[in-house]
Amino acid sequence: MYEASIHHDGSELYVLTPGDGAIFVGDRVTLRVRTGPDAPVERVLLRTAPDGEGEFRTLQAVETTPAARWWSVDITILNRVTHYRFLIITADGMRWLNASGLHRHNPTDAEDFKLVAGWDIPEWLESAVFYQIFPDRFCDGDPANNVRDGEYEYRGVRSRAGNWGEVARTVKMEDQLTYYGGDLAGIAQKLDYIEDLGASALYLNPIFSAYSNHRYDVTDYFQVDPHLGGNQALVHLREATFRRGMRLILDIVPNHCGVAHPWFQAALNNPEAETADFFTINHETGEYESWLGVPTLPKLNYRSRRLREVMYQGENAAFRYWLKPPYSIDGWRIDVANMLARQGEVDLNLEVGSGIRQAVKGTRPDAYLLGENFFDASSQLQGDFLDGAMNYSGFTIPLWRWLSPDRVWAKGGSREPVTVGPISTKEFVRTLDAFRATIPWQAARMQFNLLGSHDTARIWTRLGGNRDHLRLAIGLLFTYPGVPSVYYGDEIGMQGDEHHNRDTMVWDPARWDSSLREFYRRMIALRKSAPALCRGGFQWLLAEGDVAAYLRESREDALIVVASRGAEVSSLQLPAAVGGIADGTRWVDVLTGEEVTVQAGGLPLKRVPAGVMIWRRQQ
Amino acid sequence: MYEASIHHDGSELYVLTPGDGAIFVGDRVTLRVRTGPDAPVERVLLRTAPDGEGEFRTLQAVETTPAARWWSVDITILNRVTHYRFLIITADGMRWLNASGLHRHNPTDAEDFKLVAGWDIPEWLESAVFYQIFPDRFCDGDPANNVRDGEYEYRGVRSRAGNWGEVARTVKMEDQLTYYGGDLAGIAQKLDYIEDLGASALYLNPIFSAYSNHRYDVTDYFQVDPHLGGNQALVHLREATFRRGMRLILDIVPNHCGVAHPWFQAALNNPEAETADFFTINHETGEYESWLGVPTLPKLNYRSRRLREVMYQGENAAFRYWLKPPYSIDGWRIDVANMLARQGEVDLNLEVGSGIRQAVKGTRPDAYLLGENFFDASSQLQGDFLDGAMNYSGFTIPLWRWLSPDRVWAKGGSREPVTVGPISTKEFVRTLDAFRATIPWQAARMQFNLLGSHDTARIWTRLGGNRDHLRLAIGLLFTYPGVPSVYYGDEIGMQGDEHHNRDTMVWDPARWDSSLREFYRRMIALRKSAPALCRGGFQWLLAEGDVAAYLRESREDALIVVASRGAEVSSLQLPAAVGGIADGTRWVDVLTGEEVTVQAGGLPLKRVPAGVMIWRRQQ
Repeated sequence: MYEASIHHDGSELYVLTPGDGAIFVGDRVTLRVRTGPDAPVERVLLRTAPDGEGEFRTLQAVETTPAARWWSVDITILNRVTHYRFLIITADGMRWLNASGLHRHNPTDAEDFKLVAGWDIPEWLESAVFYQIFPDRFCDGDPANNVRDGEYEYRGVRSRAGNWGEVARTVKMEDQLTYYGGDLAGIAQKLDYIEDLGASALYLNPIFSAYSNHRYDVTDYFQVDPHLGGNQALVHLREATFRRGMRLILDIVPNHCGVAHPWFQAALNNPEAETADFFTINHETGEYESWLGVPTLPKLNYRSRRLREVMYQGENAAFRYWLKPPYSIDGWRIDVANMLARQGEVDLNLEVGSGIRQAVKGTRPDAYLLGENFFDASSQLQGDFLDGAMNYSGFTIPLWRWLSPDRVWAKGGSREPVTVGPISTKEFVRTLDAFRATIPWQAARMQFNLLGSHDTARIWTRLGGNRDHLRLAIGLLFTYPGVPSVYYGDEIGMQGDEHHNRDTMVWDPARWDSSLREFYRRMIALRKSAPALCRGGFQWLLAEGDVAAYLRESREDALIVVASRGAEVSSLQLPAAVGGIADGTRWVDVLTGEEVTVQAGGLPLKRVPAGVMIWRRQQ
Repeated sequence: MYEASIHHDGSELYVLTPGDGAIFVGDRVTLRVRTGPDAPVERVLLRTAPDGEGEFRTLQAVETTPAARWWSVDITILNRVTHYRFLIITADGMRWLNASGLHRHNPTDAEDFKLVAGWDIPEWLESAVFYQIFPDRFCDGDPANNVRDGEYEYRGVRSRAGNWGEVARTVKMEDQLTYYGGDLAGIAQKLDYIEDLGASALYLNPIFSAYSNHRYDVTDYFQVDPHLGGNQALVHLREATFRRGMRLILDIVPNHCGVAHPWFQAALNNPEAETADFFTINHETGEYESWLGVPTLPKLNYRSRRLREVMYQGENAAFRYWLKPPYSIDGWRIDVANMLARQGEVDLNLEVGSGIRQAVKGTRPDAYLLGENFFDASSQLQGDFLDGAMNYSGFTIPLWRWLSPDRVWAKGGSREPVTVGPISTKEFVRTLDAFRATIPWQAARMQFNLLGSHDTARIWTRLGGNRDHLRLAIGLLFTYPGVPSVYYGDEIGMQGDEHHNRDTMVWDPARWDSSLREFYRRMIALRKSAPALCRGGFQWLLAEGDVAAYLRESREDALIVVASRGAEVSSLQLPAAVGGIADGTRWVDVLTGEEVTVQAGGLPLKRVPAGVMIWRRQQ
């Protein structure tokens, strides 16, 4: 089918801009569409809507090679957001091409391609690979600052010092008061390990003062917890990461704070307190709004102008403070960004989000603004708020459900979970496409891809230790558009379900799954070095049976990723021509070194093993 | 296929609210899903996202009849917008049910069902049928106020008095300066005619002072053009419509004004003028921003606070002024709402739109706020701005393209238009669905459906006079969800292409197409009286070959509409069971009186003629 050969995305082969980075209003931009050389395309029109009024322009067929025909049109950027699509007139009718593909019917503008003026991926982020660390569990660099057994009491539970290596659960209050001594000095000591793995950036779970080991119950937005080493330890860690050119982002919790936060205690005890309007408290009943009704996490109320001032607007507001020297962090991960500033009738999510964005980018233009969102973050990813979201919806969960059944719990009624999946390959592909289609390509490049986190089962456990599926998942993690991230210990085969996912890091190499770690190392190295992965476009070549395959292509580089969740397939002629790939081009399997040559429009694969194959174009 | 039997929409059978009108935060609402009695549905879950956090609830199977199984769940409305969807677990896997139907893959939230708190169709609008009048061309009630030949000169062209009945074109400046004497007194004189047709509401093209006959070049937002009878004539017209219970909305042009408007003349001549910031003028070059570059229509600049004050915020701002006695108009049609307050980098469309909404609803809670938008208006239809849009994208254009080829012009390059369509029945259906899916059901009910207007070819001409297609189009106009509107003269078979669509009304009954008019009368009467059309849900029953059929059903009423664009089909078993319609129910063709009884899950039609059939359920 020639339809599959009709392609456009936001990458450099299809959107030619005057500079290398962001586009700006007034810029002249070239938009290109690639079609198969023999596709019966008669005419291609661009539809834009400057100032809201739709208009069409004709693309010119500018180049025809044995493998592709290129159509091109120049436009001037007039609005902050330019949304566009193409009308493809062929011998058998017309189709619309938008970010979700080809449509016979006339779709709404929701999935138009989008260019947002003034927005681009920071250069450092293009090749970044993150390593996520839960600070209490990674390495105890300074035992002197450890929380001691019974050091304090919180909500009737006494703090406990656990033993490195024991099973650490996350269910009860006791679990959250058990500390293992990990700290920033420990992270600094292990930078060699992280650098050896290849990760170039750290994402740390909360490090500000708090009473629980996860520290989402922050009690001071301006103080690194002394049990992690305090502010000075962060300065030292930054000095160590600077020397290695390593980046660092922190986890901030602007949606709520800890019940012990002085702001909240003052407000609770005194309706006239300066921070009284930071919260939503019924002083007659003592009830207050909190995160999902959890009383230790009172919800911050962004109707308060003063709260906005202290959190992001003021010169030394929390969001700005840590971006500046001597900490100079490279960005933020915003906890529950999906819920931020949403309270019943009042939804200030985008208003506050936009204020946060201005504060962050105004302080540090190349900062990465990442938000947690297990659901559909697309409204936050249009250039006004986040750069990227933790890509559970658009990558992680669909991948989990493609590889194994998932469970969903309903409120009320039966407590039995509903089993969801495994989903078919086509459903997997369509779900990824649906999420990518709602956001600008600029945002797709900055989505934070992950296989698991401190909030989920570890990927090893999720996949039941299936090595083929593990390699497949890792292969996609490092080749799908977005910024990849590794949750500490996943690379050495650490295990754990969703209530048991914050175990202390294993430092005895004898207990490591070294072949798994080696696979991570190779994939990370590839991700950082391959231009096609750093800035290439994305096109599915195949989604059939148990096999999904896609092309990543930049100006100078191309990779084909073949993912198979099923039994080995003995031979497959992978459709390459639909990707504009010419017969005679040679491709090398980056893992095995095997070489194949495209013939008759296909990449002739002798076998497709379960797992992942990555083919790279040879010059 | 049992999938087609799984249905939910926003209507009263599926969303049970405490009152008859709008829902409010805190309300308890029952959501219901209907599935075929034998559909292998094992479980149905509701997914909502209060404050942005997704959650599931289990629906209970509450009722099973021979024709349907009903599933039900109660929720409390927590946010201004409640978006929701269902997860349907069946013997062969899972599907998501959202406003665009059933999906195997996990869609984004964009097409979730939506309930907007505090928003409901005004009661009068539920059964309203509009009649659109271009004032200069409908009836000359007072020859004394006519524009005289050569009465004034505008942009080098002298006004001309045309002769009623002559060909009136719309292309040149001369055409726009030719007046035929139609006025408000004339409209008042013809209310018997309009009432006899059945229309219950008037939509008048602009009536405020201006230099051209279309009056989109307004020179005073507070003055009815003296050539139409002035403000007093509007008072008289209102008195006459009040007596008949007839509603009236006016056309306002907040995007731009006429070059002769004193605001603009002052601003152009004096950079210090009070209205200087109402416009975007380069005083060095004399250039200024205007509607699509047309110099007679300078664009209003809503960065100006003073402009906002005079247009909608102030107590006597234009938007409010006419809603109050003695004019008491029932709403506004906003010209080029798609472009309003959009100027290059600055997009204030939703901010200004939301201000307009507050002003209008604050003055007159039951006012109808309608906007022109030839494109995708969905961003304006989420409860913040418009109640409805002129439904070109979601009804008119897809219908045109289903029935006949359409043309699209591209800028630059070839001046040859591109032929688009006819589209297939499935494409037609999917396009309607796509547009309805992006807006709340509340908005779908208020979409302004039309077959043509002063901006398009007349429907007779568009369809080449094909009577079957005309009846089909009229049948859909009055039975599809939304508020139907008739462009003056369409009902008597007036003709004209897009440059010839404002002819003077024909008042000689001998020249009327009386059978066409009679068909309009019957359809209008049905639309106003049938509860299923005033507030029923919507479900496709069939979309195959040249036939599309749908069900409209309310608590007490049901209609099936069968539209066929092709040759007569000799027999058709129309799938009724998928609509939850039981065997044995009797249906009567409202046009012929023929009766059929549902058997074996189908409505056994002996013939499906080209055109439209409308079957109504008998009690």
